[in-house]
Amino acid sequence: MSGIAVVPGSFDPVTLGHIDIISRGAKVFDHVIVSVLNNQHKQPLFSVEERIELLQTATKHLLNVEVDSFDGLLIDYVKNKKATSIIKGLRAVSDFEYELQMAAINRKLDDSIETIFMMTNNRYSYLSSSIVKEVAKYHAPLDDLVPNNVEVALKKKFTK
Amino acid sequence: MSGIAVVPGSFDPVTLGHIDIISRGAKVFDHVIVSVLNNQHKQPLFSVEERIELLQTATKHLLNVEVDSFDGLLIDYVKNKKATSIIKGLRAVSDFEYELQMAAINRKLDDSIETIFMMTNNRYSYLSSSIVKEVAKYHAPLDDLVPNNVEVALKKKFTK
Amino acid sequence: MSGIAVVPGSFDPVTLGHIDIISRGAKVFDHVIVSVLNNQHKQPLFSVEERIELLQTATKHLLNVEVDSFDGLLIDYVKNKKATSIIKGLRAVSDFEYELQMAAINRKLDDSIETIFMMTNNRYSYLSSSIVKEVAKYHAPLDDLVPNNVEVALKKKFTK
Amino acid sequence: MSGIAVVPGSFDPVTLGHIDIISRGAKVFDHVIVSVLNNQHKQPLFSVEERIELLQTATKHLLNVEVDSFDGLLIDYVKNKKATSIIKGLRAVSDFEYELQMAAINRKLDDSIETIFMMTNNRYSYLSSSIVKEVAKYHAPLDDLVPNNVEVALKKKFTK
Amino acid sequence: MSGIAVVPGSFDPVTLGHIDIISRGAKVFDHVIVSVLNNQHKQPLFSVEERIELLQTATKHLLNVEVDSFDGLLIDYVKNKKATSIIKGLRAVSDFEYELQMAAINRKLDDSIETIFMMTNNRYSYLSSSIVKEVAKYHAPLDDLVPNNVEVALKKKFTK
Amino acid sequence: MSGIAVVPGSFDPVTLGHIDIISRGAKVFDHVIVSVLNNQHKQPLFSVEERIELLQTATKHLLNVEVDSFDGLLIDYVKNKKATSIIKGLRAVSDFEYELQMAAINRKLDDSIETIFMMTNNRYSYLSSSIVKEVAKYHAPLDDLVPNNVEVALKKKFTK
Repeated sequence: MSGIAVVPGSFDPVTLGHIDIISRGAKVFDHVIVSVLNNQHKQPLFSVEERIELLQTATKHLLNVEVDSFDGLLIDYVKNKKATSIIKGLRAVSDFEYELQMAAINRKLDDSIETIFMMTNNRYSYLSSSIVKEVAKYHAPLDDLVPNNVEVALKKKFTK
Repeated sequence: MSGIAVVPGSFDPVTLGHIDIISRGAKVFDHVIVSVLNNQHKQPLFSVEERIELLQTATKHLLNVEVDSFDGLLIDYVKNKKATSIIKGLRAVSDFEYELQMAAINRKLDDSIETIFMMTNNRYSYLSSSIVKEVAKYHAPLDDLVPNNVEVALKKKFTK
Repeated sequence: MSGIAVVPGSFDPVTLGHIDIISRGAKVFDHVIVSVLNNQHKQPLFSVEERIELLQTATKHLLNVEVDSFDGLLIDYVKNKKATSIIKGLRAVSDFEYELQMAAINRKLDDSIETIFMMTNNRYSYLSSSIVKEVAKYHAPLDDLVPNNVEVALKKKFTK
Repeated sequence: MSGIAVVPGSFDPVTLGHIDIISRGAKVFDHVIVSVLNNQHKQPLFSVEERIELLQTATKHLLNVEVDSFDGLLIDYVKNKKATSIIKGLRAVSDFEYELQMAAINRKLDDSIETIFMMTNNRYSYLSSSIVKEVAKYHAPLDDLVPNNVEVALKKKFTK
Repeated sequence: MSGIAVVPGSFDPVTLGHIDIISRGAKVFDHVIVSVLNNQHKQPLFSVEERIELLQTATKHLLNVEVDSFDGLLIDYVKNKKATSIIKGLRAVSDFEYELQMAAINRKLDDSIETIFMMTNNRYSYLSSSIVKEVAKYHAPLDDLVPNNVEVALKKKFTK
Repeated sequence: MSGIAVVPGSFDPVTLGHIDIISRGAKVFDHVIVSVLNNQHKQPLFSVEERIELLQTATKHLLNVEVDSFDGLLIDYVKNKKATSIIKGLRAVSDFEYELQMAAINRKLDDSIETIFMMTNNRYSYLSSSIVKEVAKYHAPLDDLVPNNVEVALKKKFTK
């Protein structure tokens, strides 16, 4: 019965690995909500508003994908959005253990919502937002790492 | 988007861990085909026909679940069934690496079919068909490990 | 010859996973000392005194369990207490590697003291103090995660 | 309350890594039973009787250690011996996952018996009975891998 | 001082992942010997002679690479060839643990020979000889999995 | 063709585990540059200058080893130094995943430079600079953990 799925994350900034997972989710579900976690304890490079805008531009070719933000407990947000599933990308064993723990606590809080894991394309298995920022900081090439609009935004941040 | 998913496996025999994953898949997809791999190189405890019957009885409360068998390449079977996704349960890190490898080769063979990973309930994280057979062989209690009809079938096998 | 074992930890706050390990240790050893690490670099939610009191209430049914605190090197504390073993709970692979490293350095410092690993009950394998605090912060239900007295204390902290 | 612990294994043959774990167990428990699994499906290098004799000679300096064999379910054997604990050595992550699964099924079968994990000395972390047999087969030196009596027995096996 | 390195393996058959590691080794070392393990306990698809020939054709563009075979202990073979290093490719965590164990025993047998690990290109991280044989058996496309000459040889094997 | 390799790290301070890897690298390569990362975001115990001096003294018996420091992208530094390889030591699975990710991004930035992994001697597999600092802080013995000159420097730091 498919329905709605949420792809939560920090997306600071969105990488081609994230876009890969979002596209795959959009093939399996009727409607996908990509939602930026508004974590007040971390110092992001891009504000929540900037991250939403970068995601909107980078996913505008995916017609059943919407971009949003949330704070508080993920499971409450998912219920409010009437979503049935949470989508997470898996790359490495360390991801896997943390995500399994998160999925278990979310299942404990509401067993009607499923966490669905999808595999990132091998090409992007080494990619993360923090690696991208490190590369951008030293003006190394960003092609094949982030969408074009994010490349432009990163260059702007690091020439200021 | 939704549609049909295949849950492949040996199911020799089906455990409560398998039933947990099948039920979760049946909540997310319109139609779920549980399909027994007919592997001619292994000596199974139950024949393919017996495994199908045990699965049919154990899933008869799930109206959108169908039981079948296959041999050959999984990806060809999935295409023939017009399914869009393969569902796999994840328990441990060793599962995870093997399944990621299988998902990558399947994606290489046909990128339009997605592998979807779901997390087995913690209660069943230690369960496997081979542990169940070991326990049954020594006549230890099987409740909370397998569906009732499988418990009956296992007892019959090991008193012969 | 059993004797005395130490269960060290931050216990900020104690969870049902910790209580599970402490109870199992109390079955194997004559006397168990649960000891709160007084780490001055971290900002705890509960003070050392509060954590000791929460542990004392939550373990008062275990007659051979005593609650204490320590700072400095664990191995010096264990020797001072005339304990022969350190008990650690294992949940995930990432725990495992870190704990093995800690056990090796402790063995290097004093090879007469053994580190004993016990397995947390599957039901609690996803539990950690930090997940509990995250859940409590958003007023989600805490039953089956922490002892009753800790649930009361967490609610008080997060309504202030 | 310490009491009796069982160290189960194939011990085909016993290595210095096994002896390390048995010695550590003998420091923590009143009495330790090292028990050779009589697995009829595997083709061992040494018979159960030979393995028992090799273990007896290699542990004769440990006064509270006894050598025995078992078949059937480990948990039934442990109960018959009135032991309260099972001791397992941990070396690598792959061991860890398998042992956790075994401990969980044993706990399911009888929750009064604890599985206790101890860490093999770093020096022996690469050792296994199968590596030892491979090395012995090609007449490479065995010192620092197995007890002296096992070295003699291995040389005899591979010159026949 | 570079010198000679050995790349040992079963190569039944060689994949593009193997070729990737061999090429990288050939950039770092003066001379690389790719050596087929003649394991008499396994039933290979290709004979040692066939595997050598497939490797020779697939590496003929690498001028400092030679193909050979060995049986017995790897470390003895490496010494006979006057090589200073063993090269192994790493893909997954399970590889990693096994290879670390092998490297430690080899270091124990001769500490003057180093094991050097290199990372397989991400594109090939899911590839193994056994997956290739499974794919070939069902006549699925083999491009991007094996060198051209191996593709031809596999097709011949599976049409017989 | 061997040539030049870089061993990058924080070395705050250098341990016997680092010295083990540096020595092994010095056997395989013509020239090895040990290079201290000048990370301005971390609060080191020893300044970059102190770390360079400690490394120089601890490696002065290795004639083809030079000590240096760098900031910015590692791959740019390696190219400037005309090195062909980066050497990293591997201890645990968690190291392994992180290092694989780093190696992949470095390969993406410049595929002509190889990352070479070597295995730390088992004796040092639990060692890290942060464990050494923790041990030194409480005046526990440091022999077999760090070179002599580092032991002296650590004692001086922690008596001030």
